[in-house]
Amino acid sequence: MKMIRVGMLGLGTVGSGVYKILTEDQSQIQSKLGCRVEIAKILVRDKKKFRDFSVPEDILVTDPKLILEDETIDIVVELIGGIDPAKAHILKAIENGKHVVTANKALISQHGDEIEDAAQACGVTVRYEASVCGGIPILSTLQEALSANRIQEVFGIVNGTTNYILTKMSNEKVDFKQALEEAQQKGYAEADPTSDVEAFDALYKLLILAKFSFNTQAEHSLVYREGITNISINDIQYAEELGYKIKLLAIGKESDGQIELRVHPTLIPKEHPLASVGDAYNAVYVKGSAVGSLMFYGRGAGSLPTGSAVVGDIMYLVNHEIGNGCHIYNRPAAAIKAFKNMRDTKSTYYIRVIVKDIPGVLGRIATVFGKHSVSLASIIQKDVGSDQVPIVFLTHETLEGNLQNAIDEITDIPEVHTIGNIIRVDHL
Amino acid sequence: MKMIRVGMLGLGTVGSGVYKILTEDQSQIQSKLGCRVEIAKILVRDKKKFRDFSVPEDILVTDPKLILEDETIDIVVELIGGIDPAKAHILKAIENGKHVVTANKALISQHGDEIEDAAQACGVTVRYEASVCGGIPILSTLQEALSANRIQEVFGIVNGTTNYILTKMSNEKVDFKQALEEAQQKGYAEADPTSDVEAFDALYKLLILAKFSFNTQAEHSLVYREGITNISINDIQYAEELGYKIKLLAIGKESDGQIELRVHPTLIPKEHPLASVGDAYNAVYVKGSAVGSLMFYGRGAGSLPTGSAVVGDIMYLVNHEIGNGCHIYNRPAAAIKAFKNMRDTKSTYYIRVIVKDIPGVLGRIATVFGKHSVSLASIIQKDVGSDQVPIVFLTHETLEGNLQNAIDEITDIPEVHTIGNIIRVDHL
Repeated sequence: MKMIRVGMLGLGTVGSGVYKILTEDQSQIQSKLGCRVEIAKILVRDKKKFRDFSVPEDILVTDPKLILEDETIDIVVELIGGIDPAKAHILKAIENGKHVVTANKALISQHGDEIEDAAQACGVTVRYEASVCGGIPILSTLQEALSANRIQEVFGIVNGTTNYILTKMSNEKVDFKQALEEAQQKGYAEADPTSDVEAFDALYKLLILAKFSFNTQAEHSLVYREGITNISINDIQYAEELGYKIKLLAIGKESDGQIELRVHPTLIPKEHPLASVGDAYNAVYVKGSAVGSLMFYGRGAGSLPTGSAVVGDIMYLVNHEIGNGCHIYNRPAAAIKAFKNMRDTKSTYYIRVIVKDIPGVLGRIATVFGKHSVSLASIIQKDVGSDQVPIVFLTHETLEGNLQNAIDEITDIPEVHTIGNIIRVDHL
Repeated sequence: MKMIRVGMLGLGTVGSGVYKILTEDQSQIQSKLGCRVEIAKILVRDKKKFRDFSVPEDILVTDPKLILEDETIDIVVELIGGIDPAKAHILKAIENGKHVVTANKALISQHGDEIEDAAQACGVTVRYEASVCGGIPILSTLQEALSANRIQEVFGIVNGTTNYILTKMSNEKVDFKQALEEAQQKGYAEADPTSDVEAFDALYKLLILAKFSFNTQAEHSLVYREGITNISINDIQYAEELGYKIKLLAIGKESDGQIELRVHPTLIPKEHPLASVGDAYNAVYVKGSAVGSLMFYGRGAGSLPTGSAVVGDIMYLVNHEIGNGCHIYNRPAAAIKAFKNMRDTKSTYYIRVIVKDIPGVLGRIATVFGKHSVSLASIIQKDVGSDQVPIVFLTHETLEGNLQNAIDEITDIPEVHTIGNIIRVDHL
């Protein structure tokens, strides 16, 4: 079986996520690709540094040349961040004929064209899905699945730190300073929060989003940028009174052949899907000429979500660019799987029972539920006194089979008129 | 320039969307692909039928052989629906070496494996993004961008008709029968609504989603199915009292090597993102081993949204399967575009002004706004009597330049203490 060898630069938050996915899920990745993907070498600063997961010391290197000039390495994954030396390493890898995957938004937003020119000249491909909104596959979707559309508008909550702060200010009515401190304590904000709260991070992501939406690389100076440091509790409260939530939005629009790009706090109607994106979640809302409005929602940061995007890019390269020796998975693998019988599934249940209003019937029903191990979470009973009284039960999680046995027995209680409805509840 | 020739079977709702996209956006599609995509022939029942858009009569044919056996056709797009004769046409196209794109969920959910076996044997590819949730690119995302993940759960609002009915019942407290009638009047439900309201349509889509999520093709009989005809206003009201919305969900889960598939009305917490998916919109919520929770939201039906998915599949085939002569767009085209100056952008504005509480200042400020063509939508003034009184203005849409000119002048009014904040408003 063909082996694809990956050289990784950096083993921080994202790097460790990539390492875990590629090692722990090796067999399922292999069955999808028809070839093995192996992390051959990892560039680190200190081989002996304590890590909370085990990595064989013999694949750690401290000299980047051992990766960039290794002829057996097919793909270089750059996860050290920043411009220098990341840019030089990537250009060297390209020059040596390696495909590149990176999560580096600062670099791609400022030097993306130069890097892609070099890649094109050398016949290799650079991918950077993880650079925008972590686990949300927005770039590949704009590039491929939505390629039939002219993108007219893109609105993104692309920075988890500021969304966490604004959500906290809104829900708990604490001021910016206090919300920022809590974000720092929880690890959502860095000690120097400038890049997030002054919206530089969001600006980088908007530039990359704009490139995929409007097919043009814009300069930083063309983007209007405003952070969230001036948002007060007063503003959040007045906005709520007027029917709005305040979110830091990255906005790109194309109309009449002109593009506008801006990042700033924005009041959006509270019933809009973007308004319900809370905490450190990210979301991107897109309007396309054919598809209309679409929204993508998910985790914009974190070791495994961002790792998911990096490994997705690696698998894309294996599938579409390297190919040779690997099968192309243009159809899902047809595995044989076991299916659960409905009686063996678990759920919470809403049950509406119509009873004749006779004292004691509630107790009798509850007893039957108990006998079949169905435990009750809530009961609503109203309209006492009429001929047909509805009682609504909400159960705790229970086996469908037990629930059905209980219902069969409840149906036989003489004071039970009918089972009004049984609807499953899912807390997702 | 190389030409890709498409033969289309059917020119109904989806077919006309595909035709419009491929003809009206031909130049942008050409610039992305580096080759022309042309609709060479369209199979129709009646060449003379009235259509509300113009299509050259000489590309219309009534004999499917003229498409299926035309050696110059590269891709056959099947949009007639149903099993017979769609299945036979697709198998014939595959046998003749043509790639296939279809939106046919009934066919793919029941005979997908047979069709893909045939395609694999003939070295062609079958794609069917449009068969699940119209414009939402969920299948290609599960297959490619999320390929690093084991999918653990998938929850979908995959049927627009029933979501429209449930939204109407919930918002307007009308019963199922009345909501169904309105859905029929608006064209969201068919004269015979069985396939939608009894959840057969959702079942088809769940089977295809399960194939891409869990890599297995399930039989229809393995899926528990329950429609929405028994949902009463009472249930919706009790659910709301308990903190839930009722949605028809297609649910797939894999745990401990076992899969469960079910389609049924479900109570979900009203603060969950799926709960805010209203009207005829669709959404799919996915939990992956690495990426965590993701949600995709958009239009699940309609001529252009579904056409967007079909044309996306055609472009994928040109890019990845046909290739020869077309450039691979592994980077966005670098077009030169004009950028708007911030003063020329339009927005609605929230403005909080702190004034010394002197009679007449509100009128003076409003006059300045008027002078600069900034029209006001709402004003909030409270706390009258204190030394520093906030007044909040919400404007109608206005030019940033005009707004800035007005603010400069307002700052100079002696009774104005300070501009508390200016935040843009977007109604998306």
